[in-house]
Formats: sequence, structure tokens, C-alpha cells
Amino acid sequence: MPEKIAIVGVGLVGSAWAIVFARAGHRVALYDATEGQCEAALARIETNLEALQGHGLIDDPAAARARIAVSTGLADALDGAAYAQESVFERADVKRAVYERIDGIAGPDLVVGSSSSGIPCSTFTEGLDIGPRCLVAHPINPPYVIPLVEMVPAPWTEEETASRCWALMEAAGMKPVRLTREIDGFIANRLQAALLWEAFRLLEGGYATAKDIDTTISAGLGRRWAFIGPFETIDLNAPGGLADFCARLHDGFYEFVKQSEPAQPLSDAVVSKAHEERRGRLPMAEHGDRQAWRDRRLMGLAAHLRDAGRDAGE
Amino acid sequence: MPEKIAIVGVGLVGSAWAIVFARAGHRVALYDATEGQCEAALARIETNLEALQGHGLIDDPAAARARIAVSTGLADALDGAAYAQESVFERADVKRAVYERIDGIAGPDLVVGSSSSGIPCSTFTEGLDIGPRCLVAHPINPPYVIPLVEMVPAPWTEEETASRCWALMEAAGMKPVRLTREIDGFIANRLQAALLWEAFRLLEGGYATAKDIDTTISAGLGRRWAFIGPFETIDLNAPGGLADFCARLHDGFYEFVKQSEPAQPLSDAVVSKAHEERRGRLPMAEHGDRQAWRDRRLMGLAAHLRDAGRDAGE
Repeated sequence: MPEKIAIVGVGLVGSAWAIVFARAGHRVALYDATEGQCEAALARIETNLEALQGHGLIDDPAAARARIAVSTGLADALDGAAYAQESVFERADVKRAVYERIDGIAGPDLVVGSSSSGIPCSTFTEGLDIGPRCLVAHPINPPYVIPLVEMVPAPWTEEETASRCWALMEAAGMKPVRLTREIDGFIANRLQAALLWEAFRLLEGGYATAKDIDTTISAGLGRRWAFIGPFETIDLNAPGGLADFCARLHDGFYEFVKQSEPAQPLSDAVVSKAHEERRGRLPMAEHGDRQAWRDRRLMGLAAHLRDAGRDAGE
Repeated sequence: MPEKIAIVGVGLVGSAWAIVFARAGHRVALYDATEGQCEAALARIETNLEALQGHGLIDDPAAARARIAVSTGLADALDGAAYAQESVFERADVKRAVYERIDGIAGPDLVVGSSSSGIPCSTFTEGLDIGPRCLVAHPINPPYVIPLVEMVPAPWTEEETASRCWALMEAAGMKPVRLTREIDGFIANRLQAALLWEAFRLLEGGYATAKDIDTTISAGLGRRWAFIGPFETIDLNAPGGLADFCARLHDGFYEFVKQSEPAQPLSDAVVSKAHEERRGRLPMAEHGDRQAWRDRRLMGLAAHLRDAGRDAGE
């Protein structure tokens, strides 16, 4: 059933969310405290709707665009909205100020999901009337081609809040996952951090170039992880399944992990080393073009995975 | 230029390598110490050549099949071979025994690559005449759809050995990466172990199901990692590139990594928990079918990524 959805904060993440909800048939109201942001968002949205059509990922971009409107203010955006996706700057005090404003305006049924990529929402919704109707709904950018949404409740988030957010996300073609309780970084960025720290450690040790470490994922492990996760990967990698894999490889893998402890902060030297190698391959002048290339490739991949799933009757 | 390639050990990994080299136009000689293995390998090879044709990943499977022959013994397999891919059981003493046999037979120009997934080849080639012509050439199974090869030299591996192996792999459509020196687990399995340990830790803490942790990768991070690696991912995720990403997110990410230390061996309980959840979704009776599904999906993904790269003029 079409609803009104408010987008609070329309930077890169918020404007991408607008596409997700408008594509799914909802009316979308944009709000941003900074002047000119909504207009910039609309321009990005129009470009991306067109690109999605080019990859067969949206049927009617003009109709979706017509469902998106700029609000006159936060109260206007929230008026009659069933759900608000908050995507303001990733800092607890900035988010707290926004939630206090929302708290004074929101109707009794509004659910608010935060795009926070690692800060649990208990740090910015405590003591608010709307607290029980808030949770984290963290996307991987851009959510109109990467379907994951991490749903993370605060201790005071009501079950109905989570179930309504889940239903909305699933109906919009997203793949929500649900954490039972809060943890810093949630799942995605904790897994990413673990992998990155080992990648930087190998680079700092001079074992390989950043490009070769990247290729190890993009031409290797990443091929399976694009459609099955790490547990299913190892489950299918031993004749007796996951337990068999662990029986064979646990001791070796544990040794690799132990050898890399204790973790240290990344040195300025290794960050510079990685950054400079990247600049040698991609000057900053071409950075925006490469981001656009990545998004086109993600669209192509999304279309491929959808078709492959259909062909397999999934 | 077509060469003769010996496959020493023709289990799942060795038989997959036979496809890689035969598809590239080389003559391939199969050898295995266990009776009946080569015949089983040929049956697998024929099935997989057909599947590759179905995905447009090989032009002439019959011609490739015709280039593969079963040897009468190790000496026959190595006779006239330019390169041998060793894929025997992953245990240092088993590999050592095979390399001692190879050492007594090999011609002066033979290069030997080991499919070892984590044991450095210095542990089984020390003191052998052929030592300088040995290195690790570790694939991610199956190599005819996952192009990564990790090349890892022993301290005594000659530069020419590495450069010949690199040229052979690249010409066969593989994507070799090169470690400068040995480290347990090389790159791929160290990165995989780091990610898996955090995944098991989240599962053990009850933060999410194994399925939701899998989805976090397969519907999220894995989408980018299928065609760009972890360094390029973060480089494109901040307006100022990798250094900018680190300036913004380093402290949070470091905190996630520190919170998970010190690593512990995986408990029997968490391995069982993951295994049983997998069995609830995939009974062992369907395990082989799901492996075959994974391989078909990998073929489709390989074809998609090849076409996407071509379309982008890469």
C-alpha cells in the first residue's frame, strides 16, 4: 500500500533512499536543513532514475520522479508520513538535535529509521517520546542497487517498529537483516573493518601491492560473496559442510588471526602508501568518473543477479 | 604458444586446473597416485566443459577435451612438460614426498606450481634441486570460473620461475597476484579468516542469525567486492579518496577491531550452531546440488563480469 515517506537529510545517502521508496510506489517528501540541498538531490535522483532504466531496474522513472516532492520544512515533510528515513551527518550530537526536533512534531504512528553506519540509535534517541518508534536502518550506498539494510533496535525500540520497518523494506525490494541488539558498527562495518585491518597489515608488511590485495578479493573471494555469504561459502567448501570445513581448516585459520594481533591503529605511513598507490592508478581528477563507473557496474550486477535468481526459480 | 602441462593430483582442484589449461590451448597430462582418480576426473571435466559452453565461457569444449590425456605415471606426465600444477592433499609431508619424486624425474626447465591453500612451499621444497623452480600458485576453486591465482615464492624461488608462471597464468585468462615473500595463509585465506572470525563472534554473541550475517555480505559488501577490492572500495567511498575515508572512519573501525580481541579458538558450540542453522536451510542430502548451483551461478557471474568489462572498454 502506498504511503508517504519522509527523507530527512538528502545528501548522497538520503537522495538514494528517495529513489528506493519512490520506485516502490510511495510518495516521498524531501527535507534538508541546508538550503539548496533538495534541488541538488533532485538533480542526482533524475540522473540515477535514468541510469536505472537503462539497466532494466525500474519500469517507469517519470512516474517515480513525479512521486518525489520537496517539503517546505521538517513539519511539512513529516505531516502524514508513515516512515521517515533519517540520513543526516554521522555524528551523535547532530543526530540528537534532529531527533529532538522530530520528537516535537511527529504523529503518533511515525516510525523513524536512521541511516547511521555504526552509531547505535540509543545514543541519540534516549528519553524521547518517539524513542520506541526509532531504530537504525543502515544501507550500503547506493541502496537502489545494493539491497542490504541492517535493522538495529535500541533497547527501547518496540517490536512493532521493527516489524513495520521490515515489511516496508522488503516490499521495496530491499533485503533487511535484523540484529537482536546493539553493537558498535553493526555487522557490515565490523566485518569490513576486520578484513581491512588484515589488508592494511599485509600492505604495511610489504607482502603485496594494494592492487594485488584488491585483486585477491575482486577476482577471488568476492566472486562467491556477491551471492552467498561467508558461512554458506565454507559450508559448500567441504564435503561434510561447515563443521567439516572447520574440522579441516580451523587450526590454520586461527593461527592466521592470532598472528595479526594485537591490532594497531593504522599508521600514517600505511594510509599514505595505500592512498598514493591508488592515486597512481586513479588521479583525483578521475575519481568522480570512477564512482559513476562503479555505480553503473553495480546496476549491471544487480540486474544480472536478479535474472540469475529468476532463471533458477528463486 | 601451446605447451604440455602436467596435472599432478587430479581431485576437485587438479581436475579444474586441467580445464583452465586445456581451454587455453595447452596439452594436458593427468597424473594421480590413486587408481581410478583420473577416470573420475575426466568425467567431471566433461561435465564442466559442457556447463562452461552453456555460459559462453568456452568456444570448443570438444577440442579442449581432446587435448587432455591420462598419463601412465608421473614420469610420463612430466616428460616434455613446461609446467606442472601440483594439487595433492594439503599436508606438508604428503607434498614433500611428491616433490621428492618430481625432483628425481623433472627436466631442467620444468616449473612447478603448488595449489597449496596456505602452506608456504618452502616447507616442502627445501634442499631439492628443483626448489628454485617451485612456487605456490594457489587458486580459488574452481579456477575455470574464479580467476585469482596467488603466486608465492619460497626464498629460493628464481625470478624466472615466477615470471614464467605469471605469463602462463595470464595467457590462460587467470588473474595472478604476486606476494613478495611467504606468509602463512597467503592473502586470500588470511583475509577470509579475519572476516570469518568476526562473523563467528557475532553469531556466538547472538547478535544475528548465520543467514543474516551471510546476507550482510551477499546483499551488501560482497556486491562491490565482486569487481573492486577493499582498498578501491574505500577509496571510492569518500570524496577525497582513501586517505579521506580513513580520516573519517579510522577511529571507529579501529575500535570495532579492538573490541573483538583477543581472538579465541572457535568453540564447538558456535561451530555447531552455524552448522545446524545451515542444515536447517540445506539438508546434507541437497548439499551436492547446491554446490552445482553455486558453480552455475559463478559461471553466470563470470560471463556477466566479462561482458560488463568489454562494454566499458576494459
